[in-house]
Amino acid sequence: MSYSTAVGARAALTLLVLLPLPCLAAQSARRDSGPSDEQVAMELRDAALASQNMAWDWVSELATRFGPRPAGSDNERQAAEWAAARLKSLGFANVHIESFPLTAWVRGTESGQIVAPVAQPLVLAALGESPPTPAGGLEGEVVIFPTFDDLKSAPAASLTGKIAFVAEHMVRTQDGAGYGVAVAARSDGPAEAAKRGAIAFVLRSVGTDSNRIAHTGTTRYVDGRVPVPAFALSAPDAEQLERLAALGEKVRIRLFSTASYVKDAHSQNVIADVPGRTHPEEVVLLGAHLDSWDQGTGAIDDGTGTAIITAAAELIREIPRHPARRTVRVVLFGSEEVAQPTAPFGAFGGHSYVDNHKAELPGHVLAGESDFGTDRIYRVALPAGVMKSDFATTVMRVLQPIGVLASHQASGEGGTDIGPAVGAGVPVFELFQDGSRYFDIHHTSDDTLDKIDREQLDQNVAAWAALVWLAADSEVDFRAPAPAAPAAAH
Amino acid sequence: MSYSTAVGARAALTLLVLLPLPCLAAQSARRDSGPSDEQVAMELRDAALASQNMAWDWVSELATRFGPRPAGSDNERQAAEWAAARLKSLGFANVHIESFPLTAWVRGTESGQIVAPVAQPLVLAALGESPPTPAGGLEGEVVIFPTFDDLKSAPAASLTGKIAFVAEHMVRTQDGAGYGVAVAARSDGPAEAAKRGAIAFVLRSVGTDSNRIAHTGTTRYVDGRVPVPAFALSAPDAEQLERLAALGEKVRIRLFSTASYVKDAHSQNVIADVPGRTHPEEVVLLGAHLDSWDQGTGAIDDGTGTAIITAAAELIREIPRHPARRTVRVVLFGSEEVAQPTAPFGAFGGHSYVDNHKAELPGHVLAGESDFGTDRIYRVALPAGVMKSDFATTVMRVLQPIGVLASHQASGEGGTDIGPAVGAGVPVFELFQDGSRYFDIHHTSDDTLDKIDREQLDQNVAAWAALVWLAADSEVDFRAPAPAAPAAAH
Repeated sequence: MSYSTAVGARAALTLLVLLPLPCLAAQSARRDSGPSDEQVAMELRDAALASQNMAWDWVSELATRFGPRPAGSDNERQAAEWAAARLKSLGFANVHIESFPLTAWVRGTESGQIVAPVAQPLVLAALGESPPTPAGGLEGEVVIFPTFDDLKSAPAASLTGKIAFVAEHMVRTQDGAGYGVAVAARSDGPAEAAKRGAIAFVLRSVGTDSNRIAHTGTTRYVDGRVPVPAFALSAPDAEQLERLAALGEKVRIRLFSTASYVKDAHSQNVIADVPGRTHPEEVVLLGAHLDSWDQGTGAIDDGTGTAIITAAAELIREIPRHPARRTVRVVLFGSEEVAQPTAPFGAFGGHSYVDNHKAELPGHVLAGESDFGTDRIYRVALPAGVMKSDFATTVMRVLQPIGVLASHQASGEGGTDIGPAVGAGVPVFELFQDGSRYFDIHHTSDDTLDKIDREQLDQNVAAWAALVWLAADSEVDFRAPAPAAPAAAH
Repeated sequence: MSYSTAVGARAALTLLVLLPLPCLAAQSARRDSGPSDEQVAMELRDAALASQNMAWDWVSELATRFGPRPAGSDNERQAAEWAAARLKSLGFANVHIESFPLTAWVRGTESGQIVAPVAQPLVLAALGESPPTPAGGLEGEVVIFPTFDDLKSAPAASLTGKIAFVAEHMVRTQDGAGYGVAVAARSDGPAEAAKRGAIAFVLRSVGTDSNRIAHTGTTRYVDGRVPVPAFALSAPDAEQLERLAALGEKVRIRLFSTASYVKDAHSQNVIADVPGRTHPEEVVLLGAHLDSWDQGTGAIDDGTGTAIITAAAELIREIPRHPARRTVRVVLFGSEEVAQPTAPFGAFGGHSYVDNHKAELPGHVLAGESDFGTDRIYRVALPAGVMKSDFATTVMRVLQPIGVLASHQASGEGGTDIGPAVGAGVPVFELFQDGSRYFDIHHTSDDTLDKIDREQLDQNVAAWAALVWLAADSEVDFRAPAPAAPAAAH
């Protein structure tokens, strides 16, 4: 399915390349006589589609030089320093790093085996923030729950000394809705299992692939700790356990992990501006995160997000003959992936940004976040107050030719990193990406550079550059309330 | 590419299902009045296509109960005992196990990291028969060779203290020809690297996928030992090293393995017959191997091979109203995957069979081997002497409707397990499978049951059952020389 999706998208983009690409020189000439914002947005869009390089070069060097960038790690810090230097050398203004403390989690050595009925290795990954097993590992009989609801229905003490296994499958969808459903077991499974006496919790990876690769991801602290060691099994391993049970066998497994915590770690946000011409205090905020899970190289999650927003801002900085009215700000957040033992329990990069920039937030006119891989954008959502405006009409004239439809719903929460800003009242736009194959590699060792489709990456940059330009060079009030609905006819 | 191949095959098979399937009862009635061999072959073929169960049930239980079955392991022995019991209960004759000694190799704990310029984990797998590293691991600068020929051209002593890395890519082809080219580096790389002073050898996995999964496989003993520790990197890791070097970095890596040898291990072949009616001493030999690499569950390599030949023989035992003239023998070989330190250096299962059955070999009229995964058969090759015979014409009438073409070349060597028998003069047939996606998972942890396409599996059984029936119920002499070519016209 993932391949046909990519092929379909490529075919769509190939069509687009057949559209007349405006000649940049001619456009510049037109700008002398005052090109409209729409013309500039189209120029930005088409330049992004023609480039194939800017975002790719960024994510390629990031994922290659630093590999995995776990929150609070040396790799994350070095990547932030590299990004800041790169943004400075590109000519961004106000480039700086803002550090904040956190409790880091470090995967140690880990392994798993079926020990009965016949010895077999298991492919698994400890969930983020999961405590280590005892030094000699732990072993127990597996109790299989087809769904997380089944586990939550199990009687008290029914799992004493056993290992709870939730075999629930994630549903593949374009919009990623399957993740929201399946991830509940990852977040709350360890606590629910522990409540019933389980010595450990395992689940089928929250993912849509059938590779022998496990998907990690954070679980939840309860009263400052994750209650029991918790692991994700690869899909084939989960199915192996289910088939063994179906053959009538009692299955025993052994789990081992030396995971640990670093209480005094630091993470950081990187900030860079393209200052506004007439309203520099008004900010369009673009967010993505520099940290990644520890087994892949964070190419898709979220190296490409940082590449998309940086390339879009760089095009806006370079191509139009004059800066936009408003400031375009890029924030490369740290520590998006991990939970924390203390309030606010996560999104420490996003909260740190809000804490440091509280006074500026009323001037934040709009925010958006890129954190859903590399595949094409197919839908745009705008704040309720502008959904029916001329601004929205212009946006659609620019974006629909590259395969982006208008959402019938107003924009929602935007994403984890900008969540605290949005919670503080900053309006949000959403450029929804095709997530059909995103969860094949999300949070796995397989999140590597080769998984990026460069044409789709550029389509993302095109949509971001065009939309952000239109918002930043406008005087639209994205906080405006939605117009009242006309009174119903009798 | 792999998906479109599978989809294409499925479309072809769907068409076939539209062909009128002969009603089994009607066929039985026809057989009372003497159905032709061709009619029986078609009946066998169509029964296999209609089943979806026999081969699947075999490979599912084998791969689930025993998981990986490395040569000489307990799992391999238990799988052989299970297979023998299953063959007996199915009603096969002469079911027994023939044991033979070998030196086994056991993967231990293993790991790899980039240590400079920035620490990053590597996904790798020790090559089979590779010696362990020193207890603390080994570390060195990586010298990259784009091809194995480049390594072989390096001057003496040019790699002293360094780690040789061959980055050569395997070419994806339908017939697997890319493997034969790429595998040279795996077989001879450690010796060529050691000759030039290298402390270790790594290569890009001999495979066609881009998953973060390494492909193991045997390397070669030289004077009774593999000269240096040797590892396969996953494709993304190989590309990461190449990109780091392209950024101008000197790359250092650390390698660790506790692999070991077991000198007094045993493996075994499982033998089962469908006795011939009139010429029981004449044998059509069907081979596949029960051992597997140690990280997957040997579903594709070669659980399906054992399932295909067993299901084909079982159909022949069950469906025709009388046994074939000749004996159909199933041999599930042990120890196909590994090299040995002493002559004949490999294929110990195949050599053991020939040693134990020397006196019967002149009566072995034909042999075939199934060891190329689960995907559809697209070509058949017969011995030179029968290529233009009525037998071949009948074979094609039965097989072409299920998508099998005639090879323009006579059959070759048949495969590793039957190789020693073929070397001793036994004629061979070949049913070539589509290998387009085989090397995506070959010799990896990803060789699991979910990778099997059940429709294509059944197409294999159909072709095997039909062809083997035609050979076994015939009096064709497959040893006959090819007819002399007519004299060229002036």
